[in-house]
Amino acid sequence: MTYCCALRMADGLIFMADTRTNAGLDNISTYRKLFTWSNENAHITLMTAGNLATTQAVISLLEERTKAPGERYPAILDLPSMFQVATMVGQTLRDVIGNHAEGGPRADSTFNASIIVGGQVRGGDPRLFMIYPEGNFIEAGADTPFLQIGETKYGRPILVRAFDPEMRYEAAVKLLMVSFDSTVKANLSVGLPFDALIYRRDRFDAGHAWRIGPDDAYYQMISNSWGEALRGAFQSLPDPVLSE
Amino acid sequence: MTYCCALRMADGLIFMADTRTNAGLDNISTYRKLFTWSNENAHITLMTAGNLATTQAVISLLEERTKAPGERYPAILDLPSMFQVATMVGQTLRDVIGNHAEGGPRADSTFNASIIVGGQVRGGDPRLFMIYPEGNFIEAGADTPFLQIGETKYGRPILVRAFDPEMRYEAAVKLLMVSFDSTVKANLSVGLPFDALIYRRDRFDAGHAWRIGPDDAYYQMISNSWGEALRGAFQSLPDPVLSE
Repeated sequence: MTYCCALRMADGLIFMADTRTNAGLDNISTYRKLFTWSNENAHITLMTAGNLATTQAVISLLEERTKAPGERYPAILDLPSMFQVATMVGQTLRDVIGNHAEGGPRADSTFNASIIVGGQVRGGDPRLFMIYPEGNFIEAGADTPFLQIGETKYGRPILVRAFDPEMRYEAAVKLLMVSFDSTVKANLSVGLPFDALIYRRDRFDAGHAWRIGPDDAYYQMISNSWGEALRGAFQSLPDPVLSE
Repeated sequence: MTYCCALRMADGLIFMADTRTNAGLDNISTYRKLFTWSNENAHITLMTAGNLATTQAVISLLEERTKAPGERYPAILDLPSMFQVATMVGQTLRDVIGNHAEGGPRADSTFNASIIVGGQVRGGDPRLFMIYPEGNFIEAGADTPFLQIGETKYGRPILVRAFDPEMRYEAAVKLLMVSFDSTVKANLSVGLPFDALIYRRDRFDAGHAWRIGPDDAYYQMISNSWGEALRGAFQSLPDPVLSE
């Protein structure tokens, strides 16, 4: 499993992804699931959930690793809009899944994967998409300003209750930490470290990226304090009156 | 879907179940999922999740509806221990699923169901079990003093953080309301009204049972206040420092 979440802020995007992959409970590894491409005209960040062979193949194709190193230049950065970026990622994902699923030997697991892709192409606004294994996609909008893939349920209630696209970036990052902490505490297949990235509108840079490891002091504080804050919130509500 | 949760208190048991069943999004109904039998020697409460035809058949068999009304006397009340109660429920569940799954026409949906059963038989302690479609079962103990079936994920983080078997019954009922509210807000297939039941050790009565409808003032207060309390808890944590 995996947990990735992206927030559509009023003037930018925030991405967070865990790094745990597993093939059974006794075979876990750490792999990066957040990838970024940028130049002076575009910023694109992509997060993956699902079959690791599929998602690595998608990333390799998008990075044009079939070409000699000197000739590689991700064509994805030259597309004229984020809609076309999402279309290209969706097509690549569908092709990879199709190549493995059809005609070859059957596997117990499926080859499916989901992708969140967001960013900004010069001339357009920052946009955020979720791409299904079939290659089609949906976009985050004002009504649903965040997207999740992987193990989405444990970390969702706090997002539904507390996320506001107008909130400060600091508060939004704190919200993601709480959402991830709730997930990590409940699902062994989601684990530290986390990769995070903030992209602010019209910067057309690589964004501010950092990794949150198990010894990250702020995350440890959140992890320890959130349970207490939650219990305090719970105790602040009045008890019901029970008849005997 | 469904959400049922049972708490193993220090001196009793609390049960709560929603009542929504659905066969597709356009076909929802209200059915009771919490059932109780009691006499002077035993209290048994059972909650069901899964295929409604399966769970109704299990309840009918346990209530001996194959017999003439005057001759019915649930044999489950005469068993000498809660372990035997769980065994009988498990065997009945497995038989019903087996009757429909084997040999007959294939259905798109499965016939599976899960059951939580708890109570007390004179001479023993109150005990709480979760029964799988295969008929085997696990018991709630001191380390994991609550059981959930159905849509368990949204309502789990608050239980993990705040439940304590030593807490007052009032606080425990409040906790269940918060857990159910988080689930209802996230999953359309879980819905009001809820059925709740408290059984206190050594009473050997029918327990205190009540129904929580959409116009229940206490539930409305919880539903409205919990979001605010959660946001307050979230805001009480310090923000991270982000570099630019």
